[in-house]
Amino acid sequence: MALEARKGANLANVGAGFAVLSAVLAVSIAINIALLGFLPGVYQPKQAGYGQSHTKTSTNTAVQQPLERAKDETSVSSTSGSLPASQGSVINLDHGDPTMFESFWRANGEEATIVIPGWQTMSYFSDVSNLCWFLEPEFAKQIRRLHGLVGNAVVEDRHIVVGTGSTQLFQAALYALSPSDGLQPIPVISAVPYYSSYPAVTDFLHSGLFRWAGDANAFQGENYIELVCSPNNPDGFMKEAVLKSDTGKTIHDLAYYWPQYTAISSPANHDIMLFTASKSTGHAGTRVGWALVKDQEIAKRMTKYIELNSLGVSKDSQLRAAKILKVISDGYEFPSSRDVKLFDFGRNHMRNRWERLREVVRETGIFSLPEFPSEDCSFTGDRTSSFPAFAWVKCEWENAQDCAAFLKSHNILTRSGKHFGVGLNYARVSMLDRDETFDIFIQKLYSIK
Amino acid sequence: MALEARKGANLANVGAGFAVLSAVLAVSIAINIALLGFLPGVYQPKQAGYGQSHTKTSTNTAVQQPLERAKDETSVSSTSGSLPASQGSVINLDHGDPTMFESFWRANGEEATIVIPGWQTMSYFSDVSNLCWFLEPEFAKQIRRLHGLVGNAVVEDRHIVVGTGSTQLFQAALYALSPSDGLQPIPVISAVPYYSSYPAVTDFLHSGLFRWAGDANAFQGENYIELVCSPNNPDGFMKEAVLKSDTGKTIHDLAYYWPQYTAISSPANHDIMLFTASKSTGHAGTRVGWALVKDQEIAKRMTKYIELNSLGVSKDSQLRAAKILKVISDGYEFPSSRDVKLFDFGRNHMRNRWERLREVVRETGIFSLPEFPSEDCSFTGDRTSSFPAFAWVKCEWENAQDCAAFLKSHNILTRSGKHFGVGLNYARVSMLDRDETFDIFIQKLYSIK
Repeated sequence: MALEARKGANLANVGAGFAVLSAVLAVSIAINIALLGFLPGVYQPKQAGYGQSHTKTSTNTAVQQPLERAKDETSVSSTSGSLPASQGSVINLDHGDPTMFESFWRANGEEATIVIPGWQTMSYFSDVSNLCWFLEPEFAKQIRRLHGLVGNAVVEDRHIVVGTGSTQLFQAALYALSPSDGLQPIPVISAVPYYSSYPAVTDFLHSGLFRWAGDANAFQGENYIELVCSPNNPDGFMKEAVLKSDTGKTIHDLAYYWPQYTAISSPANHDIMLFTASKSTGHAGTRVGWALVKDQEIAKRMTKYIELNSLGVSKDSQLRAAKILKVISDGYEFPSSRDVKLFDFGRNHMRNRWERLREVVRETGIFSLPEFPSEDCSFTGDRTSSFPAFAWVKCEWENAQDCAAFLKSHNILTRSGKHFGVGLNYARVSMLDRDETFDIFIQKLYSIK
Repeated sequence: MALEARKGANLANVGAGFAVLSAVLAVSIAINIALLGFLPGVYQPKQAGYGQSHTKTSTNTAVQQPLERAKDETSVSSTSGSLPASQGSVINLDHGDPTMFESFWRANGEEATIVIPGWQTMSYFSDVSNLCWFLEPEFAKQIRRLHGLVGNAVVEDRHIVVGTGSTQLFQAALYALSPSDGLQPIPVISAVPYYSSYPAVTDFLHSGLFRWAGDANAFQGENYIELVCSPNNPDGFMKEAVLKSDTGKTIHDLAYYWPQYTAISSPANHDIMLFTASKSTGHAGTRVGWALVKDQEIAKRMTKYIELNSLGVSKDSQLRAAKILKVISDGYEFPSSRDVKLFDFGRNHMRNRWERLREVVRETGIFSLPEFPSEDCSFTGDRTSSFPAFAWVKCEWENAQDCAAFLKSHNILTRSGKHFGVGLNYARVSMLDRDETFDIFIQKLYSIK
């Protein structure tokens, strides 16, 4: 077994060697797209302020005209996921690749190691007594345990649906909530600034069941699916649904509602709540997310979506995620001499990064940044500010009105505000990259004249 | 490490314990659906014969009326994936759950064990120098190596796109092949009997890009996507595209083009070829498939689909599949005293099972079965018949004109012919379940009076 284990580790090593950074993949999107008619946004962290600045129009009757093919807004460049070679290199903070957590798991990787013999989990089925028949029971158990520990979501009387990341679960929820008559696509809305993937992922198949309809603040109507991301991607603020209607539906994307990013004020208690390993533990490559779903019929339909879309979810990743969640919970419930506390690591790292970012912003005046209130965190017992996974920056300099283009000219790749329904003067910057990359980012900001 | 490895194995053990067979999940579909107006099919293994018996109508203008929600035809019952408790138990041969291969991997599981430390493959990115940026390089290497060994597909100058099973890749291919103007959904067709998932998976989102249009034999028009499954699910015959048009597109689903099921006559050489670990190695639970794609732009668009649908594919499963493929190739290229030859195991098992099935069919006359020609297999050097993953049976008894219902009354769950575009007198029976289940299946057939 020992020899085989080493062999396995070697193979995994080979596979993990991302970022060979060889040739010439056309450097991506985001900034290369022609400047379309987006009005500059007025910086107001609360939802109302974006109402004047976005160009999306919403509607209570579904849009019927042909849609354009999905834009390349989440595409990949040759610098994605790689370590910059030097201070002069391009650094890619376009994606929220959570490689910051790698150093935590390198220090605590032994506990979280997973071993899977060749004959295990070969069947399609994990537990046919469960509504979500492809959900590994041990993963479900560790999900409930971790939410119980952190206190960030109600798990009692909730169905768990596992997905290939929360991206697939988001689509499963759209499918589950859309009317069964299929006569008109239901409008899908979210308050600006909204996560840039929502429009593209909603519309890329031109579904007759649901259709992107823009900013929730501008929406008129009773039937809709409102996406509420809280803390919000991109701006980091806690959000609530903008619309209230007996017939409207909501999906709560709580990917960032974890103690490293914000105070845990109370257990979230919504109809559909989405979580993902990517942002909670840093394991984006496992592609595992989970939904906590109140209504049984909705949970069944989400399960059906995943059955039709991918016949279930990788059991290897579920077993690995179960192990990782277990190590996190064990770290708090059974403290050892080794200090295996992921959320402490995460919050300390994020606080430090935000302090460094705010300092360079104060000194240079390039950006303005959102200001977050301090709140009591029921998990830590401390009063804390928010330290979001993304910095949502507004370029303040006259020559930086296209914020992402300006940063790109200084070899910093970010995602333009226009993808989030607001103006070019905003950009989203990942705060989750490796330490080396973040250091270079800060140094680059200091050097900008 | 040794302790941690055992811990990991224990956890994996827990997860693998499917089939608690507890309660009362409503026993599924297939047979419970009301008898709709399907005409009885005339058994003709070649494509032409089904033309009279199916009720699907095809068209060269896309269907515009609202579609029904996806049927539950691939749903799960409390018996799915489980071992029957006794001769009297219900046995579930509805799905093609490839648990037959478990015993091979139990005997050879040490070599195929995968070990993944907590810090590995955390990033979204596997290799940004590759068009398919979430494809693990080691997996790509082992895919090319195995096809080279078996000789079942051309891999030179092909792009590999990895998917969450071939189900996701099938949808990626539809997306990639559909017209970019999006004005009319392109008709998607396949010759009857076609794989029962094709209609549901094509239509469940009511996409404006593509629309299921039934039997390829009845289709009139120049623009279409034809699905060619070869060897065919459900009937096991080698198939070629029915239509020829300069503007028509084809997707070749080659999930079963492996030496355990059929003779390998020559390397398949098509524009888009889909494969899956489920049916080649038996690892359905890993949810990993791959496409070999000739055209770079098509490969890019398939990659884009998977990016939008699930932001990539589980790296844990890719690493595991890479290890498993490596063990298979090693078994033939570096023979050892231990006889680790998956395809030999598979063919021997399948031949034995088919012989036993044909014998009980001869003795009882319940069914007719397809007859397959013998062909030279370039991989083994032998002349061999086909031993398909499914038995496509036609009930011949007067009281068995609804074949699946008849078998269900004898506690054998199968999938009715109506889901494959033909008559109720056909049913598809999985030949890939565990030995214990197959033994009971054969015993049950002998006991039917």
